[in-house]
Amino acid sequence: MPLPEKDLISRIRRHARPRGPLIAGIGDDCAVQRVARGYDLLITTDFTLEGIHFRREWHPPEVVGRRCVVRGLSDIAAMGGDPATVFLSLALPRRLPQRWADAFMKGLLKTATEFRAVLAGGDTAESPGGVFADIVVLGTVPKGKAVLRSGAMPGDEIYVTGTLGGSAAALTEFSAGRKPRAQDFPRHFAPVPRVAVGRVLREKHLATSMIDLSDGLSTDLAHICEESGVGAEISADAIPRARVGRKKTPVDLRIALDGGEDYELLFTSPAKKRIPIRIAEVPISRIGRITRPRRVVLINERGARTELRARGWQYFA
Amino acid sequence: MPLPEKDLISRIRRHARPRGPLIAGIGDDCAVQRVARGYDLLITTDFTLEGIHFRREWHPPEVVGRRCVVRGLSDIAAMGGDPATVFLSLALPRRLPQRWADAFMKGLLKTATEFRAVLAGGDTAESPGGVFADIVVLGTVPKGKAVLRSGAMPGDEIYVTGTLGGSAAALTEFSAGRKPRAQDFPRHFAPVPRVAVGRVLREKHLATSMIDLSDGLSTDLAHICEESGVGAEISADAIPRARVGRKKTPVDLRIALDGGEDYELLFTSPAKKRIPIRIAEVPISRIGRITRPRRVVLINERGARTELRARGWQYFA
Repeated sequence: MPLPEKDLISRIRRHARPRGPLIAGIGDDCAVQRVARGYDLLITTDFTLEGIHFRREWHPPEVVGRRCVVRGLSDIAAMGGDPATVFLSLALPRRLPQRWADAFMKGLLKTATEFRAVLAGGDTAESPGGVFADIVVLGTVPKGKAVLRSGAMPGDEIYVTGTLGGSAAALTEFSAGRKPRAQDFPRHFAPVPRVAVGRVLREKHLATSMIDLSDGLSTDLAHICEESGVGAEISADAIPRARVGRKKTPVDLRIALDGGEDYELLFTSPAKKRIPIRIAEVPISRIGRITRPRRVVLINERGARTELRARGWQYFA
Repeated sequence: MPLPEKDLISRIRRHARPRGPLIAGIGDDCAVQRVARGYDLLITTDFTLEGIHFRREWHPPEVVGRRCVVRGLSDIAAMGGDPATVFLSLALPRRLPQRWADAFMKGLLKTATEFRAVLAGGDTAESPGGVFADIVVLGTVPKGKAVLRSGAMPGDEIYVTGTLGGSAAALTEFSAGRKPRAQDFPRHFAPVPRVAVGRVLREKHLATSMIDLSDGLSTDLAHICEESGVGAEISADAIPRARVGRKKTPVDLRIALDGGEDYELLFTSPAKKRIPIRIAEVPISRIGRITRPRRVVLINERGARTELRARGWQYFA
């Protein structure tokens, strides 16, 4: 392997000493992890590709590193699990400045540590094009207690955490040639996976189904409905729209409905359960209910009903 | 997501129904896997990048699929483990013919099934360049019994399975503008991870350290020495050279020493242990011994000693 990669491996390695659930880490053919008795293992893998998921001229390397690992941490949160280990496969172009790679790793490691996950291994290669990362996060959940997408029942209420559209709104700014400031678009530049909320929902048996909002509400709600064999109706005026920019302007409804990468949680709960207005300090909003007919309906401010189509989240489209 | 990817997801999904250790597979935020009591989990991740690890004009898609998953299965073998689940992150260029993706998946799934591993999840994306795959293989090994790279002791004998250089020899042919036939270079076109051999070595406590030969003997032996804090001397005439081409010509010594991707196993064993000449029908060759001085020495046919430098395996270099 070329030298820059060797450097990268040693640098990753310093952060990847065996500890916690990890018996052997980087430096062997495989990592060896022990799963405590009474727990199931959760596994998720997510690509972060330059030109598809981020642009080097738009996103500082620390932000790319953070967003890269948040994608996986958020999937663990959506099962009600606790993150344990992170594996990073990273292909870098030969001419990438060393400080870019350093800052990327810094963002990634800081975020993993924040959520008590240990970098445990991975792979490095020279990239024939841009920066390509694949992140694997392993987590644990008490045996049989993972919250799946498939448990929603007609009559269940639908909830989301936080506010929606804040991340996509930053992309709209970039696309318009503006330079959004990190502090005005926190969900884009410093997304927080809702691990604590997911854990509480699982522990208190509050959620019948759950998913993280990575593709956008319209798409992710459709996933819940498809996996559960149900439909849904949601109220436009109940959608908690993110407030962005210097003036904290609420995003357009369309962005709140279709914008991806908010990494909030969408969950369903039986109507008889009382859901707190905040969980782990995150506001919770009720946005609609699960129905037997298998279609997703949006009820607008004037009470008119239209089909909510899953507008697959197109990065930079 | 664009439609071709959705197709791919449904196709992967048909092969990824929950079974064996898998409680939930594709179709949720995470896969859920149960690790049996008394077992440790093994995790390995490996990139397969077009232009770095394969070329579309050289390698048929089934072969790329097979080699992609063999990289991970071989890492599990090198720990003495059993493969359990496979996760595939796959980025495909928009203009890739559907039949290429189909044949790639066919090669990958057939190989996974051959080694009793279940495709359990992954991610798909549109690639801004070529075909990029990242494969994650999870396996299991009885608690505390994983064979690490770090256990070699001075006086241990060094062994390899099979023959070496057969895969790199095919690349030499390609680079010279020739078209090697699959049946003349089986280790390149249809490599077999040595899962059965690794399992026997672990069960019978025959190996003090083990690694798979993915980067080439000179590099992988250096890894064992580095992790174990020892040196080694090996005899040139003991290296089992692959016989390739129509005439089954032995490869050059240099190719056997430095050529990568043979996916054979290199292991060390105390001198007092009797190692069979075949394990699980694979021939085993003794090639040298572990020494206290921390250098790797090659003894040539005339008894001359030279330092064996780790010539990092450069794909297509």
